[in-house]
Amino acid sequence: MMTTAKLLLHCPDKPGILAEVTDFITVNKGNIVYLDQYVDHVENIFFMRIEWELKDFLIPKEKIEDYFSTLYAQKYEMHFRLYFSDVKPRMALFVSKMSHCLFDILARYTAGEWHVEIPLIISNHPDLAPVAERFGIPFHVFPVTKENKAEQEQAELKLLAENNISFIVLARYMQVLSETMIEAFPNKIINIHHSFLPAFVGARPYHAAFQRGVKIIGATSHYVTSELDAGPIIEQDVVRISHKDTVEDLVNKGKDLEKIVLSRAVQKHIERKVLAYKNKTVVFN
Amino acid sequence: MMTTAKLLLHCPDKPGILAEVTDFITVNKGNIVYLDQYVDHVENIFFMRIEWELKDFLIPKEKIEDYFSTLYAQKYEMHFRLYFSDVKPRMALFVSKMSHCLFDILARYTAGEWHVEIPLIISNHPDLAPVAERFGIPFHVFPVTKENKAEQEQAELKLLAENNISFIVLARYMQVLSETMIEAFPNKIINIHHSFLPAFVGARPYHAAFQRGVKIIGATSHYVTSELDAGPIIEQDVVRISHKDTVEDLVNKGKDLEKIVLSRAVQKHIERKVLAYKNKTVVFN
Amino acid sequence: MMTTAKLLLHCPDKPGILAEVTDFITVNKGNIVYLDQYVDHVENIFFMRIEWELKDFLIPKEKIEDYFSTLYAQKYEMHFRLYFSDVKPRMALFVSKMSHCLFDILARYTAGEWHVEIPLIISNHPDLAPVAERFGIPFHVFPVTKENKAEQEQAELKLLAENNISFIVLARYMQVLSETMIEAFPNKIINIHHSFLPAFVGARPYHAAFQRGVKIIGATSHYVTSELDAGPIIEQDVVRISHKDTVEDLVNKGKDLEKIVLSRAVQKHIERKVLAYKNKTVVFN
Amino acid sequence: MMTTAKLLLHCPDKPGILAEVTDFITVNKGNIVYLDQYVDHVENIFFMRIEWELKDFLIPKEKIEDYFSTLYAQKYEMHFRLYFSDVKPRMALFVSKMSHCLFDILARYTAGEWHVEIPLIISNHPDLAPVAERFGIPFHVFPVTKENKAEQEQAELKLLAENNISFIVLARYMQVLSETMIEAFPNKIINIHHSFLPAFVGARPYHAAFQRGVKIIGATSHYVTSELDAGPIIEQDVVRISHKDTVEDLVNKGKDLEKIVLSRAVQKHIERKVLAYKNKTVVFN
Repeated sequence: MMTTAKLLLHCPDKPGILAEVTDFITVNKGNIVYLDQYVDHVENIFFMRIEWELKDFLIPKEKIEDYFSTLYAQKYEMHFRLYFSDVKPRMALFVSKMSHCLFDILARYTAGEWHVEIPLIISNHPDLAPVAERFGIPFHVFPVTKENKAEQEQAELKLLAENNISFIVLARYMQVLSETMIEAFPNKIINIHHSFLPAFVGARPYHAAFQRGVKIIGATSHYVTSELDAGPIIEQDVVRISHKDTVEDLVNKGKDLEKIVLSRAVQKHIERKVLAYKNKTVVFN
Repeated sequence: MMTTAKLLLHCPDKPGILAEVTDFITVNKGNIVYLDQYVDHVENIFFMRIEWELKDFLIPKEKIEDYFSTLYAQKYEMHFRLYFSDVKPRMALFVSKMSHCLFDILARYTAGEWHVEIPLIISNHPDLAPVAERFGIPFHVFPVTKENKAEQEQAELKLLAENNISFIVLARYMQVLSETMIEAFPNKIINIHHSFLPAFVGARPYHAAFQRGVKIIGATSHYVTSELDAGPIIEQDVVRISHKDTVEDLVNKGKDLEKIVLSRAVQKHIERKVLAYKNKTVVFN
Repeated sequence: MMTTAKLLLHCPDKPGILAEVTDFITVNKGNIVYLDQYVDHVENIFFMRIEWELKDFLIPKEKIEDYFSTLYAQKYEMHFRLYFSDVKPRMALFVSKMSHCLFDILARYTAGEWHVEIPLIISNHPDLAPVAERFGIPFHVFPVTKENKAEQEQAELKLLAENNISFIVLARYMQVLSETMIEAFPNKIINIHHSFLPAFVGARPYHAAFQRGVKIIGATSHYVTSELDAGPIIEQDVVRISHKDTVEDLVNKGKDLEKIVLSRAVQKHIERKVLAYKNKTVVFN
Repeated sequence: MMTTAKLLLHCPDKPGILAEVTDFITVNKGNIVYLDQYVDHVENIFFMRIEWELKDFLIPKEKIEDYFSTLYAQKYEMHFRLYFSDVKPRMALFVSKMSHCLFDILARYTAGEWHVEIPLIISNHPDLAPVAERFGIPFHVFPVTKENKAEQEQAELKLLAENNISFIVLARYMQVLSETMIEAFPNKIINIHHSFLPAFVGARPYHAAFQRGVKIIGATSHYVTSELDAGPIIEQDVVRISHKDTVEDLVNKGKDLEKIVLSRAVQKHIERKVLAYKNKTVVFN
């Protein structure tokens, strides 16, 4: 695999942006291997993801950001982010007691499915330490109480910084994060909520779904914002149930949904295919 | 097709009910063609649907209800309903301006897919009169305002009674029914709500879904109760959307969902396969 | 709605095509309202669909095709097609005895959902004449036997030509078309097959699905080619079944699938969003 | 959890079977906790699964089979199987090189989701030995060539017998089993095929699906019979794809399908809810 640059951007829509950006790359001898764009005609915003091979590209890798910023971003009032395929994102996993999402992620990691590093796992309970140990990943327990929450999060933030963590995955972590933590990782904390949001926000969604008598249950992966279960949705999926299913059946059927939905969202994030804008996401193909 | 009796019942679960009821039918030479039962082990309720051919059945058709009530229903504190396959339920359609659900129902009706009579259509707008005319079904317009609502509903109830209507289908009828109307048809008014309930209760759910940035939209068919969009759910289904879909796209994709979900619910109701209990439904196979 | 031009093209992939084509439009003051492109990196083919408003476009409508051909198509060895939004495609419906797809299409047509004209319906049986009559569409019966097939198709082709038909929809038309007919409408005849192709090609797929004991059934809409049920697939969908479903249940569940899948495919075709290439389709968003 | 007996049976349908069987249990003071039955009206076969608590049951556990056989099975020409909930089925896993199904099964096993023992894993390649080691399960490599196949299978059968294995799961085992092996475990070998059977039987189904241009791919779990990929289907599921997906994308999307579909099938088998009959399965709720 050749090294590629991945550029994600959005800006007010104007004629010619697409042509100019693609032209910038081809004129400088970059071979475009991916392009997806989308115009929100309601808000008049242009969104784009473009990826090109750096071999033969005339602009040195370390100067691309500067050049692009000067030549185009200013002119078009763009917000953009540039990534390189030879830099692996570094992911921290937060877990509590349930193992299904953790196993699913570590299985993919071990099989080399994802272009990511997982230097550490953080938990508020010791229960899953043996799982982490099996996969050879450092496991850090930070028990959280009302009293020590701020203090423990500071310790966690320090650990995350020391490990150069670029994003966090809450793999059924049963704690609400504080503003401080959320602000330190804006649109970089991915949660899995065990309902079809916005239905059944908050605790015990399977019990609520059972009480309501729905015929389908869901799971939702989203970026964490300060409002509980209300951040930009990355991925959702559902499964059919019936009156015969008990709450326990919902929990069991839900586990498969949760792990698959979370892993799809994490994969899209790792591939740099998610662009959060306001309270929504553009998920490129 | 031979005439059959269809018995739906529920009662506190006790050993022997199933054996006694099936025995009652076979001993009296009824040929059982359908049996489905289910025990809610949380509430300890036994639910059952059984259907048998009346040819050779020793108890005369008109006495079955009496015999069953005396011999079993009292003993087991059963709630039960008995239907006969040679009695067609009579359905009233309520519509407003959108035609997709109406067309879908009338197409099935015309093709003879459903064992039902549709003697009339009621609307608060004249727009769909030409559709009703095409299918040769009387169309009654009852314009509703805040001032005349009670009065108009009385006129509607009179018309429904004159036509011996057994249940009502709200095929995108954009009016909230009054308590009086709802109490006149308990668990006999089927609505289609254009969202995956309980998400997006009330008006303009596609706009709300668009604002929230969900990745899947749904439709829900339920019995109407006095609490808006909160009655027992009969059927739901969903379709995947993306950031590229506008509100208009959601409306269009939703139309297909709505008509299919509503028709599935109506069919189950016509087949006497839905048993509402508390705020949920048991939908037999 | 302003008049737009819709351009669909494919050609060997080379650097700069996307930039040149979008540039061509923006330089000439066309306002791009839609753009989707895709590169098949295996076959090295570039596919594109672009749509722009003609108001203010400097090149006269009737000369666009010529200009584009001269300036770009020759240079890049493009195959392209140009459509204008003020030209309604003219569709012929072929039916036999089953009404569900016919009703679904005519309901959408009547409700104005589709930008299309339906000047006529052709059938090999008289059964659905009353449906056509209800919707006020001329209905032509061409009974087909082995002996008269070639002759009848000639008559049909004449009728289609007289009505300036641009594409044909086989809405459960239970006759195999001859080569002559297929070649007269290359990738312009849309069929619905009542199975999840390539499973259960040919006659009686629901019986075959029942025999095989599958747990899911499907429907497939595709362009008709000379090989039976083997043309480019436009759309598919499925529904879950169980051992409790009889062949008759499969037929009934399948009807809903068939009509929705066929209508989705027809809508994409009408919107000029389907590009058939070799034996596959690119379906733009 | 109390110990229960699980009885699965099928026989020619006759009046009174259901009543007699449920009566047998309730009269002998068994508390029925599960009952599902189904009549195939085409073949006239009665299928039933019933489960009851053994506490207070008057017939000693070890005599139930004998009593039931004498009193009912002979009379009604039943085929039946009796299981007890305190006996864990013993499962052997067969794998080759791909780890996704193996990880998924071992994660559930470790989390205690399944009532099963996994005493050993067999593979024709050494690649997944480290995975087995992590989960502490003995891993046996039996490299298979045309020449040594019969011999190796004899060694495998010996190992399976020594470990008292009751059923086998082929978790992407890329070898066709011989008749000898299949006959030793009739309807007790569960395979996952990476296509929506009967489409794309045999090798490289994702390549075939890509070539055909399908819009949906699937996975199928079935019992292994002597005809390749043609045994009774237990479970299937599908996922939507598009023209943008490469073969590699199909493989990746398919992995999630495969593991979920296989695990659902294995779970149903462990719960004794699958009854294979002729070339189909009855899967009880």
